[in-house]
Amino acid sequence: MLENTKVDNTQLRLQEVKKALESGMFVLARSILDKMPACDVAFLLESSPPGYRKVLWNLTDHDQHGEILEELNEDAKDGIINLMGTDNLVAATEGMETDGLAYVLRGIPDSVYRAVLEQMDTQDRQRVELALAYPEDTAGSIMNTDTTTVRPDVTIEVVLRYLRLKGSLPDTTDALYVVDTDNKLLGDVSLSTLLTEEPNSMIADVMNHDTEPLQALMEENEIAKLFERHDWISAPVIDSDRQLLGRITIDDIVDIIRENAEHSMMGMAGMDDDEDTFAPILPSAKRRTVWLSVNLMAAFIAASVSNMFEATLEQVATLAVLMTIVPSMGGIAGNQTLALVIRGIAVGHISSSNTRWLIGKEAAIGLLNGMIWAILVATAVVLWKGDLQVGYIIAGAMFINLSIAGIAGVCIPLLMHKYKIDPALAGGMALTTVTDVIGLFSFLGMATLVLRH
Amino acid sequence: MLENTKVDNTQLRLQEVKKALESGMFVLARSILDKMPACDVAFLLESSPPGYRKVLWNLTDHDQHGEILEELNEDAKDGIINLMGTDNLVAATEGMETDGLAYVLRGIPDSVYRAVLEQMDTQDRQRVELALAYPEDTAGSIMNTDTTTVRPDVTIEVVLRYLRLKGSLPDTTDALYVVDTDNKLLGDVSLSTLLTEEPNSMIADVMNHDTEPLQALMEENEIAKLFERHDWISAPVIDSDRQLLGRITIDDIVDIIRENAEHSMMGMAGMDDDEDTFAPILPSAKRRTVWLSVNLMAAFIAASVSNMFEATLEQVATLAVLMTIVPSMGGIAGNQTLALVIRGIAVGHISSSNTRWLIGKEAAIGLLNGMIWAILVATAVVLWKGDLQVGYIIAGAMFINLSIAGIAGVCIPLLMHKYKIDPALAGGMALTTVTDVIGLFSFLGMATLVLRH
Repeated sequence: MLENTKVDNTQLRLQEVKKALESGMFVLARSILDKMPACDVAFLLESSPPGYRKVLWNLTDHDQHGEILEELNEDAKDGIINLMGTDNLVAATEGMETDGLAYVLRGIPDSVYRAVLEQMDTQDRQRVELALAYPEDTAGSIMNTDTTTVRPDVTIEVVLRYLRLKGSLPDTTDALYVVDTDNKLLGDVSLSTLLTEEPNSMIADVMNHDTEPLQALMEENEIAKLFERHDWISAPVIDSDRQLLGRITIDDIVDIIRENAEHSMMGMAGMDDDEDTFAPILPSAKRRTVWLSVNLMAAFIAASVSNMFEATLEQVATLAVLMTIVPSMGGIAGNQTLALVIRGIAVGHISSSNTRWLIGKEAAIGLLNGMIWAILVATAVVLWKGDLQVGYIIAGAMFINLSIAGIAGVCIPLLMHKYKIDPALAGGMALTTVTDVIGLFSFLGMATLVLRH
Repeated sequence: MLENTKVDNTQLRLQEVKKALESGMFVLARSILDKMPACDVAFLLESSPPGYRKVLWNLTDHDQHGEILEELNEDAKDGIINLMGTDNLVAATEGMETDGLAYVLRGIPDSVYRAVLEQMDTQDRQRVELALAYPEDTAGSIMNTDTTTVRPDVTIEVVLRYLRLKGSLPDTTDALYVVDTDNKLLGDVSLSTLLTEEPNSMIADVMNHDTEPLQALMEENEIAKLFERHDWISAPVIDSDRQLLGRITIDDIVDIIRENAEHSMMGMAGMDDDEDTFAPILPSAKRRTVWLSVNLMAAFIAASVSNMFEATLEQVATLAVLMTIVPSMGGIAGNQTLALVIRGIAVGHISSSNTRWLIGKEAAIGLLNGMIWAILVATAVVLWKGDLQVGYIIAGAMFINLSIAGIAGVCIPLLMHKYKIDPALAGGMALTTVTDVIGLFSFLGMATLVLRH
C-alpha cells in the first residue's frame, strides 16, 4: 500500500505510543512499537526523557535491539547500553554489520566490552577487533566489510549467474568491486553497467578504472567532503597495499555531514554536538560548567578593564549606563565574521591563498560599519543624554571597536585552526573577550582623557 | 589509474591553478582547469575572491559551464550568471537535468530568465516551467524527471532486454519505478533485485509494494528527514493523483541537510546560510546592517535599564565595574540551552509531548548553576573588592538571572517556533536581551534597595 503522508503517519504513531505509555496501556504501546521500523523507534527514544526511555526500551522487541542501537545517537546509545545486561547486548549485536557493531561497542565500559567480546563467535570478534583497531573517525573505523567483488576476466553473464546464486546484495550496493587474485582493487563496475551492457562483455572492458578508493586511515571529514563533492553512493576502502578492506556508504556520510555542521553551531554556544537534548540534569549541568567558568574569567577580564577607570565612572555615572553599548556592537559584528570564517574553514573554502583577501574584505566591512554605527549611535546618545562630549567619545570607541572586530573575526579562527584549536568551540569566547576589552578600554579610556582636560 | 591520496591531489591541483593565475600563466591555468571535474572547478570558484572568479570563469571550458553552475552555491551561482551573456547561459543550460536547470534559473533577473526561456527548445522549456511552477523548497522544485519506469506484468528478462537497448541509466538510479498504464506509481524494483532474482520472475512478484512516495508539495526539510531516517538513495515524487512526476536523489538531500545545519549556526550569528564567504564588500556590509540595528536596539534597552539606576551608580562606582558580569553569565547559560533546543526543533525531537519535561530539566539546571555561580562569583568579588554587601547583591542577582536564563532558553525558541518565527535567527538576540535586562535589573535593583537602608 502506498502511504501518501508518510511524515504525518510517523508523527502520528509516535504520539500514539506516547499516549499509550502515559495512560499505562503497555500492551497497546508494545503492539504499536512492534509495527514500527527500527529507525522510528530510535527517533522515539531520542525524543523521550530518560525515564520514558527505560520503559520504552523494555517494551521493544528484542530482535530489533541491535538495529535500534545502531540508529541512536552516541549519548542515547550509551545510556541504553547501561540499562542492558551483557547477555542482552551480546544477543543484540549478533548478525550486525561491522560498522554498526563497531559503533555500538565503541565507548562502552571496558569490562562490558570484554564480556561481550568473549561471548561472540570467532568471526564476529575478529571483525569487531579489526574495526576498532583503526582510530575513531577514520575510514577503517566507519567502513563496512560487506563488499561484493568480481574478477576482471569474466563476462557479465558469469557475474549475473553468480549474483542470482547469491540471491541478494547488501544494502546500498551501487557497484561491485573488481579485484585481482591478491584482492587488490582494480576498479569497480556499477549495477547500472551490469544491467545495460551486453551479457557477453568482459568485466575488464566495461568496468570503471578510475575508481577513487579511500585509504583506511583517511579522516572521516575528508571522506565526507569527497562524497559531497563527487555525489558518491559508496566508495571502497583500501590499505596501503591497495588491498580492498571494505566500503563506506552514503548513509553513514549523511550522519557525518550533519554532525559536522551541528558541531559548529553547538560549539559556538559552548556545547558538544553529541549533547543529548534529553540527557539527565546532573551530567548536563556538569558539562556546561566548563564553559561558564571560561566565560566567568572573560567577564572578570572585562570588569578589570572597567575597574581601571573606576575614578572616571565615579565622576560621570552616564558613562556606566552607556559603556555596555560599544562592547555589545563589537561582539555582534565580530561574531558575524567569525561564523562566516568557521564555516569557510569547515567546508574547506578558506586556505592560505585567499586569507589575505578575506582579512582585507572583513577589515573594509569593519571600517564601513564602524563609520556608520559611530554616527548613528553618537546621534542617538546625544539626543538621549544631551551631552555632545559623550557623543564624540562613543563615536570614537565604536569606530575603533567595529574596525578591530572584523579583523579579529578573521584572524582569531584562522590562528586557532593553525594551532589545532577548534575555532567553533573557542573562537566566540576569545573574540568576545577581545571586543569587550577593546570596547570598554576605548570608551572609558577616551572618556578619561577628555574629562581630564 | 588508482589515486591513493585523492584529497591531496585535489588540493594540489587547486593550488597549481591559483599559482598559475597569480603569475599570469593563463594557458597553464586553462590546461589544468580542463582536466578538473566540474565539482572541483566549482569548489575552486567558491574558494576565490570575486576578481579571481571572473578570470577563472573565463578560462573554463564552455562545455563544462552548465555542470559547474549546478554545483555552485546560490550566491556564487548568481554572481557568475551576472557575468554571462544570455546566449552563453542558454548554451550552458542545454541538456541539463531538470533539477539542475531549475536551480540555475531560479532567482535570476526576470528579463534574463525570459530571454533564456525564449531561446530554449519547447521540451526544455516545458520541463523548466514545470519545475519552477512548484514553490521553492518543495519536492516538485528539487525533483528530477529522469525516472525509468516498468510495468508490473513483464518478466525480469524483458526488463533486462529493455535496459540493454537503452544502453545506460541516469546517475544515482538505484531502482526502477513500477507504474500502471495511467503512469500511477505501484511500487519499485531495485537494481539489486533485477540482478539477483531469476530472469523469468514477474516484476509484480519481486517488486517492492511498500514504496513511500513523496508528494510534490512536500517540504524539502521533511523530505531530508525521511531520507536520513530511512537511508534512502532515491525516492519517487507523485502528484495528488499518484501519478509519477519524478524522483529525488540523495546527492540533493545531502546539500539540504548541510544547508539546514549551517542555517542554525549562521543564523545564531545573524547571518544567512547562503552568505558567500567571498562576497563583495558592499553587499556583505549591507546584509549585516540589519542584525547590527537589531542589536543596537537591544543594547539601548539594556542601557535604559542601567539608566534607571544612574543615581545608585553615581554613589557606588564599583557597581558599574561589576554590573556586566551577571548579564554575561546569564547570556552564556541561556545560549547553551537555546542551542540545544534549536537543534532539537530542527531534527524534530522536540514536540508538545516532551516540552514540559524539557522546561523542567533546564529550569533545574538553571537553579543548580545559579547556586554554584552565585557562591563562586560572590566569593571572587568579596576577595577582589573587600565588600561583603556587594558580594550578597551579586550572588542574589546571579542566582535570579541564571535560573531565568534556563527557562527563557527553552521557552523563547519554542514560542518563536509556534508563531513561525525562525528561532535560529531571532532566538539569540531575544534571549540576550532578556538576560541583559534581568541581569542588570536584579543587580542594580538589589544594590539600590540595600544602599537605601
